[in-house]
Amino acid sequence: MLTLIGLGLWDEKDITLKGLEEVKRADKVYAEFYTSKLMGTSIEAMEKLYGRKVVVLERKDLEDESWKIVEEAKSKNVVILVAGDPGVATTHSSLLLEAKRKGVETRVIHNASVISAICSVTGLHSYKFGKSATVSYPYRGIVSKTPLNVIKENLSINAHTLLLLDLNPKPMTIGEAVKIMEKVDDGTLNHFAVGVARIGGDCYIKCDHFYSLPNHDFGKPLHTIVFLSKKLHFTEYEFLREFADAPKELEEFVE
Amino acid sequence: MLTLIGLGLWDEKDITLKGLEEVKRADKVYAEFYTSKLMGTSIEAMEKLYGRKVVVLERKDLEDESWKIVEEAKSKNVVILVAGDPGVATTHSSLLLEAKRKGVETRVIHNASVISAICSVTGLHSYKFGKSATVSYPYRGIVSKTPLNVIKENLSINAHTLLLLDLNPKPMTIGEAVKIMEKVDDGTLNHFAVGVARIGGDCYIKCDHFYSLPNHDFGKPLHTIVFLSKKLHFTEYEFLREFADAPKELEEFVE
Repeated sequence: MLTLIGLGLWDEKDITLKGLEEVKRADKVYAEFYTSKLMGTSIEAMEKLYGRKVVVLERKDLEDESWKIVEEAKSKNVVILVAGDPGVATTHSSLLLEAKRKGVETRVIHNASVISAICSVTGLHSYKFGKSATVSYPYRGIVSKTPLNVIKENLSINAHTLLLLDLNPKPMTIGEAVKIMEKVDDGTLNHFAVGVARIGGDCYIKCDHFYSLPNHDFGKPLHTIVFLSKKLHFTEYEFLREFADAPKELEEFVE
Repeated sequence: MLTLIGLGLWDEKDITLKGLEEVKRADKVYAEFYTSKLMGTSIEAMEKLYGRKVVVLERKDLEDESWKIVEEAKSKNVVILVAGDPGVATTHSSLLLEAKRKGVETRVIHNASVISAICSVTGLHSYKFGKSATVSYPYRGIVSKTPLNVIKENLSINAHTLLLLDLNPKPMTIGEAVKIMEKVDDGTLNHFAVGVARIGGDCYIKCDHFYSLPNHDFGKPLHTIVFLSKKLHFTEYEFLREFADAPKELEEFVE
């Protein structure tokens, strides 16, 4: 059996009681931190609390060589610990699919993800988020236009955009993300956004013009950005004023 | 201090270790189950596992009379247990805002939400979900067109739509939701969807034409529906074939 267990957003104590039970029961405990990272803890702290040896997987172990894990799960209870909620990364659904096809039973133990947690942190309404996108580091000097295009699509239906920031080779900061996106901007980004750091931990949040976000010190990663829709519910505005020190000018976008 | 603690998706064991610590430390433990429900447990089971008396709040306690809770949190550590992830319901962000304005410190302990869990269950890519919507029971005989309009908006940007189903006075079934939406359909709904029941518990999932979903027995609630975008990634299609018995005809939408 192959069980993917979500670890939530911050440290080793964000695991659920159900998740911990499965870790204790497993024959083998793996963890992977390239699709998402847990910044408030360490492997040692996890091993101590969970009472198990945790083997960290590399990217290749879950992609090119995923068959090895699946093979092992045919005869053993194999657990893979994943930051956030498993399945949000497509790597995980591919692994579940491969296991199912090879006759291996699969299970997912859910946990918090930035996708839902962003709502209580920003006060933005969950039903107003459109598609999300990842801001990647330039590849051979070329900046992907995907995040910009997703923002445009979302603006066309009055939806907020959650921008996740690249984690590899190291977690991208809000300042870096803004500079990268500036290179492909056609004027779309002349609007307000919310920068969020360390969600689930000592969270810091600041609403400002997208291009003013780098002026603020968001501290250590992980960082993420919400690019706002052009119409805000007044409770969204009020929440951002109170919790994210939003500028008064944002009020003109309240519908 | 006012702490909102997510309980996750199914039963009393879905709480996180961090959440449980806060429950044990609290002066007063409330719970509310009208914005979301936990179907795999009972107040008695929670009280037993958490070792605390849990007082269930009504809707009015968190809306019209929310000041009472906030007042209590001025001098006590007040905890409110919430199914899913707090903040996904706007009721919670309003409460956090009210508390902050009255000088009460607030905290949220995150947990799994259907918003992210839907990805690992359906294999649909998280970045392809657009805005979500709730299918409500008709009010004075009138069916809201909002979910239909949200589906149209999402289709315009090739995004999936997560449809949450009304919980009050009783959890709506997939069959009921389809019949309600049929009344306002202008042809938009002639497409495929995925019905999901009991996510986080003994989950059942079936992909079919939207109008064929009522032919399947999804069993007990909670139910939810994903209305698919017109273009699917081939791994989304393959996952739905394998885990949701999707019809072969869905293949024509693979891009």
